[in-house]
Amino acid sequence: MPYFISGVTADHTNLIARTPDEFKSMNDIDVLPRHRVTSIDPDEHTVTVRDLTSGRDRVEPYTRLLLSTGAEAFVPPVEGTGLEGVFTLRRLGDSLRIKRYLADARPRRVVIVGAGPIGMEMCESFSTLGLEVTVIDMAGQVVPYMSPEMAARVQARIEEEGVNCILEQSISSIQGKSDGTVGGVVTGSGEIKADLVLLAIGVRPVSKIASDAGIELGAKGAIKVDAHMRTNRQDIYSAGDCATTSHIITGRQVWLPLGSTSRKQGRAAADNMFGGDAEFGGVQGTGILKCFDLTVGRTGLDEAQAIEAGFSPVAISMEAESLHEYYPEGGIILLKLLADGRSGRLLGAELVGQMRSVAEKRLDILSVAITAGMTADDLQYLDLAYAPPYSTAIDIPVIAGNIMSGKIRGGECGCGPQGLD
Amino acid sequence: MPYFISGVTADHTNLIARTPDEFKSMNDIDVLPRHRVTSIDPDEHTVTVRDLTSGRDRVEPYTRLLLSTGAEAFVPPVEGTGLEGVFTLRRLGDSLRIKRYLADARPRRVVIVGAGPIGMEMCESFSTLGLEVTVIDMAGQVVPYMSPEMAARVQARIEEEGVNCILEQSISSIQGKSDGTVGGVVTGSGEIKADLVLLAIGVRPVSKIASDAGIELGAKGAIKVDAHMRTNRQDIYSAGDCATTSHIITGRQVWLPLGSTSRKQGRAAADNMFGGDAEFGGVQGTGILKCFDLTVGRTGLDEAQAIEAGFSPVAISMEAESLHEYYPEGGIILLKLLADGRSGRLLGAELVGQMRSVAEKRLDILSVAITAGMTADDLQYLDLAYAPPYSTAIDIPVIAGNIMSGKIRGGECGCGPQGLD
Repeated sequence: MPYFISGVTADHTNLIARTPDEFKSMNDIDVLPRHRVTSIDPDEHTVTVRDLTSGRDRVEPYTRLLLSTGAEAFVPPVEGTGLEGVFTLRRLGDSLRIKRYLADARPRRVVIVGAGPIGMEMCESFSTLGLEVTVIDMAGQVVPYMSPEMAARVQARIEEEGVNCILEQSISSIQGKSDGTVGGVVTGSGEIKADLVLLAIGVRPVSKIASDAGIELGAKGAIKVDAHMRTNRQDIYSAGDCATTSHIITGRQVWLPLGSTSRKQGRAAADNMFGGDAEFGGVQGTGILKCFDLTVGRTGLDEAQAIEAGFSPVAISMEAESLHEYYPEGGIILLKLLADGRSGRLLGAELVGQMRSVAEKRLDILSVAITAGMTADDLQYLDLAYAPPYSTAIDIPVIAGNIMSGKIRGGECGCGPQGLD
Repeated sequence: MPYFISGVTADHTNLIARTPDEFKSMNDIDVLPRHRVTSIDPDEHTVTVRDLTSGRDRVEPYTRLLLSTGAEAFVPPVEGTGLEGVFTLRRLGDSLRIKRYLADARPRRVVIVGAGPIGMEMCESFSTLGLEVTVIDMAGQVVPYMSPEMAARVQARIEEEGVNCILEQSISSIQGKSDGTVGGVVTGSGEIKADLVLLAIGVRPVSKIASDAGIELGAKGAIKVDAHMRTNRQDIYSAGDCATTSHIITGRQVWLPLGSTSRKQGRAAADNMFGGDAEFGGVQGTGILKCFDLTVGRTGLDEAQAIEAGFSPVAISMEAESLHEYYPEGGIILLKLLADGRSGRLLGAELVGQMRSVAEKRLDILSVAITAGMTADDLQYLDLAYAPPYSTAIDIPVIAGNIMSGKIRGGECGCGPQGLD
């Protein structure tokens, strides 16, 4: 949706993975738009469905039921969130409304509340459209889930593009103009004028209909499921942004809603609902975003999470060119890698790189290595694909493995890329 | 060097990783250019060194010795390989000589003998310079180490660029013009005119000095080493294109010389020569090349190798866009994946994709998964980094895992990307 708003994606219908008609013609699945399930009876194996057009309720039986109610944007409990020109960005309709408001009301100043992934992507989208952008976050940094030194890079880059960052501030209210449209956001340090406000604070699982039916909730109020995507009630499954999952490294129950996870959970749930035996392997918090020409990504645990899970994390940071200097298309990547000081096991990674550095490749390499339980020593000997247009002869994850291995052994061979080249 | 010849790399001095002076100033290492070791005495721990400038020999003692003699280009035993205008491309001097010949002799027609990685890269380099290019290979396809259907894509692409492919032909001689420069290459089906001939048939390990000293050779005549990079003689190590290694999947001794492997072997050898205990993990034949706008890569075993190693390989092929259609910068990737039908263990992968598809990311993901011993089921649940500029919500390796998993289970859920989207 950020790319539809900025115009990179020309046609919003491309954002619809499949229409109800396509579900019918391709898979013989009946999709009932404008119908709401108002309650579930797990004992009777029925749901009550309201046809929103006619207003009539009916009871539908099920053999197996999937709850894929998703998540909804969190709207902070402050005055003014209902003003015209105040938006969240969660559903396709939100982006259509934002696009229409941009065309009709011609806002000049935009305030984005929340400097997470959506906030960062929308900094780029609104800036691309020529708007004055301010981003506000309660945390002392942008991308609050990244280490401060990584976040500092991102902040510097968006400020270079003219984005105004206001940190360690929460909003106390949203003010209107005399015409009823939004006029500004009030924080502890004063009012920031705004013709459009985007609330990008996060999402909450839609799980009330489940808990009302006696289905157990788990982490962050999401619907609790096991690796087979089963809830605590017979024949009721859940998948997607409404459901919990387990963390690959810690084994603990977590709620980390992401589109990629939803797809995999949905497939596992479907397999099991039709008699299969699929175990969804969990997640490790891999995430990535593009903001202007920067790629910002992470996977695994951060230091606090690693300590909390009983590890003794050792961190290394390095900065390297993605290609040898003689091949002209590379870029700089900043990498922070975390491993357990006792076992050497890789625990987490954060990267910030220019788009041209293909930082996402190094992130996915490290993500797979972490999932596989590899150690820093293993990382040193990965057989990655080398040719000058793609990487240096030993690529950044391998160099990071060298440095980490040395640091864990007490620094005796912790040389950086300079010492290796 | 292909990029220096085509002009992508402007300055050949950038291709020199470190000069003798830099070795001295940065690491206090004495490098003696124009000195040749003529023999090794493992019992006495000495080498005999000839100063090529003075012609004088001297005996130098060593505590530990590293043999990093590398490999040399193979020149076929046919008439005419010594003609002016016939080249191999192995050392920096070769590329300087080719570049000078291009400038001085102004060749118009180039014949490349060998359609492997160097041959393919040089197709692009010579075409970029406006030359008429013919590539000849004994095999029935280009990139002979790839599956025929992958090779067909590459051949179609280079033919589109005007490269003439002559397959299933070996050269019987190279003919000269009256001025003593090269004039053509003779094959079983006739003579092909050429003003420049590049022999890109492969390399051979430089190991005679080792075998003369009683050091055991291994696969393909390379210097046999263990995981610690030790030869069979006390205190003598070997690393790089002259040394054997082990295959990660089969555990067998192989010789697969590559720059990336050399770096890693060199590091392990150095660690061990200074009292460390580094075990080089081996290789699995990962390789990649760019040819025009195509990326061509492979890792692991092919079907014949898998059968030979005792596996029951199952193969799947798929073609998919690297990004969702609504994000405009993706490209098509053709992937062939191999797994063991009994255990599900991933065995190998081949990819051909447009540069813009970032096929190298998918190759490295699969390379790490194979090294880790992952199965097709594991592949289905990788937590890869998703955002629209980087991949589809479930990326190509995950889709391949879905398809492979279904095929191994008897096809009951072997749906392709269409069925998953």
